[in-house]
Amino acid sequence: MKEIEEFFTYLRFPSISAQPAHHGDVRTCAEWLRDWLITHGLESAEVRETAGLPVVLARSKFAKGRPTVLLYGHYDVQPVDPLELWRHAPFEPVIEDGLVVARGATDNKGQTFAHLLGIAEALLVEEGELPVNLILLLEGEEEIGSPSLGAFLEAHREELRADIALVSDTSMVAPGRPAITTGLRGIACLEVHVQGPARDVHSGMFGGAIANPAAVLARLLASLHDETGRIAVEGFYGDIADPTAEELRGWAELPYQEAEILAATGSAALAGERAVTVLERVWSRPTIEVNGLTSGYQGAGSKTIVPATASAKLSARLVPHQTPEAAAELIRRHLEAQPLEGCRLRVEYDHGGNPYLLSADSPWIAAAQGALAEVWPVPAALVREGLSIPVVEKFKSILGLDTLLIGLGLPDCLAHSPNETFPLAHLELGKRLNQCLLRRLASL
Amino acid sequence: MKEIEEFFTYLRFPSISAQPAHHGDVRTCAEWLRDWLITHGLESAEVRETAGLPVVLARSKFAKGRPTVLLYGHYDVQPVDPLELWRHAPFEPVIEDGLVVARGATDNKGQTFAHLLGIAEALLVEEGELPVNLILLLEGEEEIGSPSLGAFLEAHREELRADIALVSDTSMVAPGRPAITTGLRGIACLEVHVQGPARDVHSGMFGGAIANPAAVLARLLASLHDETGRIAVEGFYGDIADPTAEELRGWAELPYQEAEILAATGSAALAGERAVTVLERVWSRPTIEVNGLTSGYQGAGSKTIVPATASAKLSARLVPHQTPEAAAELIRRHLEAQPLEGCRLRVEYDHGGNPYLLSADSPWIAAAQGALAEVWPVPAALVREGLSIPVVEKFKSILGLDTLLIGLGLPDCLAHSPNETFPLAHLELGKRLNQCLLRRLASL
Repeated sequence: MKEIEEFFTYLRFPSISAQPAHHGDVRTCAEWLRDWLITHGLESAEVRETAGLPVVLARSKFAKGRPTVLLYGHYDVQPVDPLELWRHAPFEPVIEDGLVVARGATDNKGQTFAHLLGIAEALLVEEGELPVNLILLLEGEEEIGSPSLGAFLEAHREELRADIALVSDTSMVAPGRPAITTGLRGIACLEVHVQGPARDVHSGMFGGAIANPAAVLARLLASLHDETGRIAVEGFYGDIADPTAEELRGWAELPYQEAEILAATGSAALAGERAVTVLERVWSRPTIEVNGLTSGYQGAGSKTIVPATASAKLSARLVPHQTPEAAAELIRRHLEAQPLEGCRLRVEYDHGGNPYLLSADSPWIAAAQGALAEVWPVPAALVREGLSIPVVEKFKSILGLDTLLIGLGLPDCLAHSPNETFPLAHLELGKRLNQCLLRRLASL
Repeated sequence: MKEIEEFFTYLRFPSISAQPAHHGDVRTCAEWLRDWLITHGLESAEVRETAGLPVVLARSKFAKGRPTVLLYGHYDVQPVDPLELWRHAPFEPVIEDGLVVARGATDNKGQTFAHLLGIAEALLVEEGELPVNLILLLEGEEEIGSPSLGAFLEAHREELRADIALVSDTSMVAPGRPAITTGLRGIACLEVHVQGPARDVHSGMFGGAIANPAAVLARLLASLHDETGRIAVEGFYGDIADPTAEELRGWAELPYQEAEILAATGSAALAGERAVTVLERVWSRPTIEVNGLTSGYQGAGSKTIVPATASAKLSARLVPHQTPEAAAELIRRHLEAQPLEGCRLRVEYDHGGNPYLLSADSPWIAAAQGALAEVWPVPAALVREGLSIPVVEKFKSILGLDTLLIGLGLPDCLAHSPNETFPLAHLELGKRLNQCLLRRLASL
């Protein structure tokens, strides 16, 4: 089928935004998207420069009196390591048991492409017209925190003026059970560097007399939580808003609970804050996670040194009404207040994004529930997601736009992990959802 | 002078054991040593094969009723790079300000050759007889970790039967201040692996609900010490012997203290066990050091995952009467008793070596102190070293021999570094020390 062929072509671009060696591939992918949009009936489509990697910006034919929908997606993908855990080459998509396996399959090429197919088909049927004015904004830096998008939105406020944003970069509740995501956690990414001796030194000659920066780092990281799983950083919970009782009731009825999280992660037991439910832990409670550790000798065998340095990558997930800057500052102060034993500590705030929340009684939500009901018989759940979509917060703060988050992926699609998947059938379902939703939004 | 000429000839062999291109030079050097020993009155001297590079084995005329001394040295040297930092060609010895500058000058050709000169002169004076039965064992693989020596000792136990081993491969305290090294720390090397989720998973989707193995590892490592710097592993100090009050008094008077350790490491402050002196911390107290940390994403920027695994390389330095196997087992039990939050823990003991201690009231020490007093007016300090010298542990475990460690080099002789030196006067002082020491050992 031509649509699958085109989807596979899209997946074959190794558009890894985190790795400079792949920036050429990111750009080639953008150019391919532009060409695809032009040949599939969009009024205009351009590769537009930013301070970093380009965005693809396209528009349908506009008409007065129709709402303008800003459909956002991203064509960049996560790195692929550890490569040895992939069953197939990550940029050579294959279909296994109805699932497309490739890096970016669900996050976000598959979900985006379903919408694009819906739009292209509607344009064909409706002779060049969509029921709404459509702006397509496809980003190339989402997986590195959208560093250039804010400035791009700022610089093109007029061109991007719209009534509602639409993003499919979240997840359904389960196969056949759609969801509208009303909230997202924010994020603050930090790096922590601990410097001990001036160079790696002999652990026999000097071990025991000077601080070991890897051990100091371990104690710093251990200090971030108490024994009940709560974050022990002073003031960290100060600004947070609890979910409503109705939200909590809805969450309690979802099929996605402890067992599903254990199955999805392969973890042997739950952990984290003992005092709250598992969905609160991932949706409405902040976290501080260690994403990486580096120190000393990591090769085969042993090297008996006191290493010169140790470092950790951290990311905090944030909930309304925390801000990344304030959260990073609290973490920095907390770490600096710990015993450093003569080591030098450097805490660097790298980037972040605000949390997001859309009220459940918004008309946009009602329109989305109606459209979803046309495609899936089971009513859409109102959920949140624990991850960040920085662009949603930027749409709010820069363009004043609320965002409808309607996921087309499944919880077990392995976004960011080896062997990422997207159900092939969701290309067609997503295409229909796009068409139903644009019609309903048109009537608001 | 003939002795200096011969010393320079010895230094000119580029006997670098680490570099296969120099293995011919290593062998030529061994053959030269053998010939020198024969022409200087040893009863026998042979180049003996091992699984790797040869040893030179020589014997004096043996007589009943005299103690047998096994004098060990090594004729291989460290590589010379970075060559551009040398003031002269490393294998063209020169004398500058009374210092012989050449690779191997102190480590170990100079210290060894002083002994050989003492023996040759004594043989000449005493008409072919030494006061002791002497076995000379000169190794060609010390700088690569003595990989073949253990098997050689095992295979020639009878031939190497002796009463005491004598090694000059350590350091004096300062010019004019000799030292006897009475103790060396042992070592136990381990790896700690923590497995969390089955694969790296999205820290937004799952962070907060499942254990993060990097955070669990940090808490495990943090649990190894208490806030006073003491090891918190139950039973870890159970078997250890404290240094004597006399040893401690001697250590307190040494010029090598806190400032020297800070200068040598570039550390900003001392750390470790607050309750004991800095020399106890490096010489007579056990340690557990983190030698390396690995987890998750270590590249540029951020990757927001809960990593699947986290691991640490650990090495414990051990003191009498700890054993590496027992120490590793205590660490393993301690770690397994910590909260793992559903993570799987694997603690692997890699390898180790026993600590070494020669009692300060041993007659060997008394003999060495007496001999040193004949050469240097300042009494010899009894010191230890924090590192392991594998050959000493092999002499103990394979041949059942104690070892007298008497350094003829100085702390600033730049062993292993460019512009390595040996004080020319130490050839003569070492020669006299050898003669005084063999006489005193003969009378035990």
